[in-house]
Amino acid sequence: MAVATLGHVELLCPDIESSLEHFTRVLGFHESTREDGSIYLRAWGDWDTYTLILTESDDRIGLGHASFKVEADEDLDEYQERIEASGYDTRWLEPGAEPGQGRALRMDYPGSHPEHEHELELVYEMEKAEVPKEQRSRLKNQPQRYNDVGVGTRRIDHLNIMVPNVNECREWIEDVLDFNLRERVVYEGEEVGTWLSVTPIVHEIAFVYHERPQLNHVAWYLKYFGELFRVVEVIKDAPTGEIYSGPSQHGVTQANFMYHVEPSGNLFELFNGGYLIFDPDWEPITWYDDEIPEALAWWGEQYEWPQSEDQRPEAAPSK
Amino acid sequence: MAVATLGHVELLCPDIESSLEHFTRVLGFHESTREDGSIYLRAWGDWDTYTLILTESDDRIGLGHASFKVEADEDLDEYQERIEASGYDTRWLEPGAEPGQGRALRMDYPGSHPEHEHELELVYEMEKAEVPKEQRSRLKNQPQRYNDVGVGTRRIDHLNIMVPNVNECREWIEDVLDFNLRERVVYEGEEVGTWLSVTPIVHEIAFVYHERPQLNHVAWYLKYFGELFRVVEVIKDAPTGEIYSGPSQHGVTQANFMYHVEPSGNLFELFNGGYLIFDPDWEPITWYDDEIPEALAWWGEQYEWPQSEDQRPEAAPSK
Amino acid sequence: MAVATLGHVELLCPDIESSLEHFTRVLGFHESTREDGSIYLRAWGDWDTYTLILTESDDRIGLGHASFKVEADEDLDEYQERIEASGYDTRWLEPGAEPGQGRALRMDYPGSHPEHEHELELVYEMEKAEVPKEQRSRLKNQPQRYNDVGVGTRRIDHLNIMVPNVNECREWIEDVLDFNLRERVVYEGEEVGTWLSVTPIVHEIAFVYHERPQLNHVAWYLKYFGELFRVVEVIKDAPTGEIYSGPSQHGVTQANFMYHVEPSGNLFELFNGGYLIFDPDWEPITWYDDEIPEALAWWGEQYEWPQSEDQRPEAAPSK
Amino acid sequence: MAVATLGHVELLCPDIESSLEHFTRVLGFHESTREDGSIYLRAWGDWDTYTLILTESDDRIGLGHASFKVEADEDLDEYQERIEASGYDTRWLEPGAEPGQGRALRMDYPGSHPEHEHELELVYEMEKAEVPKEQRSRLKNQPQRYNDVGVGTRRIDHLNIMVPNVNECREWIEDVLDFNLRERVVYEGEEVGTWLSVTPIVHEIAFVYHERPQLNHVAWYLKYFGELFRVVEVIKDAPTGEIYSGPSQHGVTQANFMYHVEPSGNLFELFNGGYLIFDPDWEPITWYDDEIPEALAWWGEQYEWPQSEDQRPEAAPSK
Repeated sequence: MAVATLGHVELLCPDIESSLEHFTRVLGFHESTREDGSIYLRAWGDWDTYTLILTESDDRIGLGHASFKVEADEDLDEYQERIEASGYDTRWLEPGAEPGQGRALRMDYPGSHPEHEHELELVYEMEKAEVPKEQRSRLKNQPQRYNDVGVGTRRIDHLNIMVPNVNECREWIEDVLDFNLRERVVYEGEEVGTWLSVTPIVHEIAFVYHERPQLNHVAWYLKYFGELFRVVEVIKDAPTGEIYSGPSQHGVTQANFMYHVEPSGNLFELFNGGYLIFDPDWEPITWYDDEIPEALAWWGEQYEWPQSEDQRPEAAPSK
Repeated sequence: MAVATLGHVELLCPDIESSLEHFTRVLGFHESTREDGSIYLRAWGDWDTYTLILTESDDRIGLGHASFKVEADEDLDEYQERIEASGYDTRWLEPGAEPGQGRALRMDYPGSHPEHEHELELVYEMEKAEVPKEQRSRLKNQPQRYNDVGVGTRRIDHLNIMVPNVNECREWIEDVLDFNLRERVVYEGEEVGTWLSVTPIVHEIAFVYHERPQLNHVAWYLKYFGELFRVVEVIKDAPTGEIYSGPSQHGVTQANFMYHVEPSGNLFELFNGGYLIFDPDWEPITWYDDEIPEALAWWGEQYEWPQSEDQRPEAAPSK
Repeated sequence: MAVATLGHVELLCPDIESSLEHFTRVLGFHESTREDGSIYLRAWGDWDTYTLILTESDDRIGLGHASFKVEADEDLDEYQERIEASGYDTRWLEPGAEPGQGRALRMDYPGSHPEHEHELELVYEMEKAEVPKEQRSRLKNQPQRYNDVGVGTRRIDHLNIMVPNVNECREWIEDVLDFNLRERVVYEGEEVGTWLSVTPIVHEIAFVYHERPQLNHVAWYLKYFGELFRVVEVIKDAPTGEIYSGPSQHGVTQANFMYHVEPSGNLFELFNGGYLIFDPDWEPITWYDDEIPEALAWWGEQYEWPQSEDQRPEAAPSK
Repeated sequence: MAVATLGHVELLCPDIESSLEHFTRVLGFHESTREDGSIYLRAWGDWDTYTLILTESDDRIGLGHASFKVEADEDLDEYQERIEASGYDTRWLEPGAEPGQGRALRMDYPGSHPEHEHELELVYEMEKAEVPKEQRSRLKNQPQRYNDVGVGTRRIDHLNIMVPNVNECREWIEDVLDFNLRERVVYEGEEVGTWLSVTPIVHEIAFVYHERPQLNHVAWYLKYFGELFRVVEVIKDAPTGEIYSGPSQHGVTQANFMYHVEPSGNLFELFNGGYLIFDPDWEPITWYDDEIPEALAWWGEQYEWPQSEDQRPEAAPSK
């Protein structure tokens, strides 16, 4: 029994038309389907029928929910027991409640948003993408041909959530969902950032400190490191999207990254690099106090640290 | 008085509609204008209103003409005298005979094709691109924004012509048009390839041996080395265009290149790398006999050498 | 219970002094220790005290043994039972029989070499590298600083063994050691190549057809795709090492690779790229007959296929 | 008659031993010769016997002199006349006054430092590098093999001098030495930065505003864009050298750059990218006021602008 991978994320989009235009025309996502105010998308390297959901919202931005895939359908029942035993509520979504999906388990957890935003979900069954013939690749191990319109966004990677109780969230997701702690940032004795994964990638989920729970960003992987710089060319002069920071490299996770703000206001990361963890007894890496500047920016723009309250970046910077 | 740079090249296209689709949709060229069966294009990094002309033809492929820009209009008269004095005919094109151009000087030369194909031209005056507002870049030293549709072809670079009399062509273009010899390939005492330039790039023109005069290829530059590999992704699965060879690196010119065949059958090179020559007394490099394999392919696919007659690649390989 | 990762490989080296010079000076490996005619090395990105063993040999080249790490020490006993039950012998190595290692399980299997070369091993306990202070990195999640002498070889990745019974080896390693089949090449109905992994990387081990069992190659990963081309610069003009093929890209595994022959004659791959498999229900990819050329070379040098017997590449090409 | 290229630069080094160690071990320069307290170096892609001179100094850092090569020896006499006519003094260096050099012309000019630091020099004759056999490359158009020790610094590119009279320096070097203005930064009507070249590269020399004349930096080119990031790995953990800014991209010149401080305190740029200017009638690019942030940093760390006096970066930041 195990969580296998991050499956999809749902972004709340007050300006869903502009967001759709941006994700398809500038970032090179493909639309899979639409249903009930949501638009379901995937990148050319995503095997599932969708990995990104844009959901129309009144004014809120952020994460609707993030869905992790488990190794077998019966794992869902066991995880439900564990979650309930940990003191948090769960609820079932019927098969098809999200298109192409089997039954899914939604849950509360220590990082839950009071209004049930940025929920977590577990699911096993998910339809694979049906790729039109003209989008298929002769490269048989690739779900479809490289999309050469806009940025060649490849595949879903991870998400980063801001919570006031980083340590509590981390311990809960280790204990209940079997995530492995990979790296941490500790400032004046307090765990202010934490990166966890169920696979050899450094994280599928991170929690970083903010007094108000909110999405920090979602992240997709690029095929080549060099594409990060092509992305700059594209987005700087595109009608939609605004560079937030980078290209740069985090010390934590070793990710080469570029953040930009999509038209609805959500922060979106394109990244490459990082490292893989194969050691069955990985000793988590902790970055302390004066190591934090390099933990945040191994090279590139330096972050002010400690951040004064009013400079702490919002999950979605105003444009 | 000097030739300043390569200005534009004209390709003969039996299937001009497919070629146009390929150059705009797959290679990311912009259409500038159309006139008399010709379509005028430029890449995002070309400052002139066009650098590539596609001209409808019955069945022939190859080079219509290649146009070099001189430093001043009066240079044209001096070059005319020199060309005539060297025993070759010239003829004038009226201003506007090619759109946006001033008067132009066409010439015969030792590599002239019997039916006046692959002519050479000299010109001074050429209109700059009028870039629509939505295609402009905030990068003021860039003629327009990076084109993110298909391959990000950047700017015109050089052409390579096959002739039976390499040495004669080389000496003529050195003596009459002031080109500088940069590199040569000599096989069994015979000059079988020669690369010349008027600027620090290694060549704007090359002549390589073939018993039948014909275009070998024209070449455009890419912004980043890494884009060569993105180009493979795009072209391998595109509806038009066929990889011919590469990515690879020539020893001669140090070019990192990729050749493909456009839908009409002309060989087109995308490249990056190479080196610049700043030395006012450059000593030409000569590659002899057993050095030729590395001269042709420093890494990547090896060329058979010496080529048996029936394996010598045609300028435009059949598809 | 599971095999966690590839731990180390042992190469037989008739010219061990030249091989050592090559691995340390040209490829940037660090020497960890020496014992009984073996030299233990690691790359800058390897966490274990060694990942590559060079063992002096009279005239044979190839694989001594390949060692996989399991998730817990007790897994060794369970795997022993399974292996014996499958009809193959096992034997135990005492703790410390290889420096820094706990008890280890050696085994016969369908691809065993008659003279006990290229053995497989399972082990749990392995010492981490003790990195001298001047080789440490401020990047805390990196075992030591990037080695800037020669090629920046990063970390062990996989090995490829040639056997006459590809299908039998594949089924055995799936059934007994829990490897997952990721990709296959099938020619005229026969499985002639097979790639398997225990982690999301496409393979830690591959079997490809040859009538005589032998090592094909071992492979280390590079940090950046672009380093593949720097490697060419280094090795082409280095006193030791000879390019075998590449840079190029396999269709199978999507690996961007470069093979060269180290001074003793073993084939060594440096690679980057590839893709990761997160799907718990991965459907293995099979490349059939006329798809094989692109399976072997998505771009770059084409392999002749089907290979005539005398052109089939030896594991270690003569220099 | 023309200035052909930048030939060499001389850096003043209070800690010459550490600087030498840094340039050879970390940056991969080769020592050519030593004479009178100066050490003469070249990078693997420099054809001349040296391009960088380290000169021992008491406590001053900065530029000793910068030497430009002219197209013919007699050009020196003509330039002398012009310089004197412009109201500035000249003086001759005897052949051999700098090793391997013919007669050389030193000059005062509007940016001259009161104590004759950062002088300009013109020279024609300069010895080519004598490359030991083991450092030669099979790549015949490369002066020597790629140096794989430390950073693969390729070839000299340009220098940037800070002066209080940017506009005056620019007009003088245009008028007297025939440099071409390529780009300018104008703030509140005052020219505060100016980039000029004699070849298609955007600049061999730049002048930027500072009330106290001083060297800003000298710059060498890298073979590959991707090497900028390898340089970070190397320098961040090297015993000498300190990252100053980057990797990043200027809007002006489009250079992808990384600045670091060498042990004596001089600012040193490694760069790649940029663009080439082939147009004989290039219209200089001017960046005004609110365009300046992107002119300075197209992507990467943003510079504060306008700079408050005490934040204006010194040519050589204290370590």
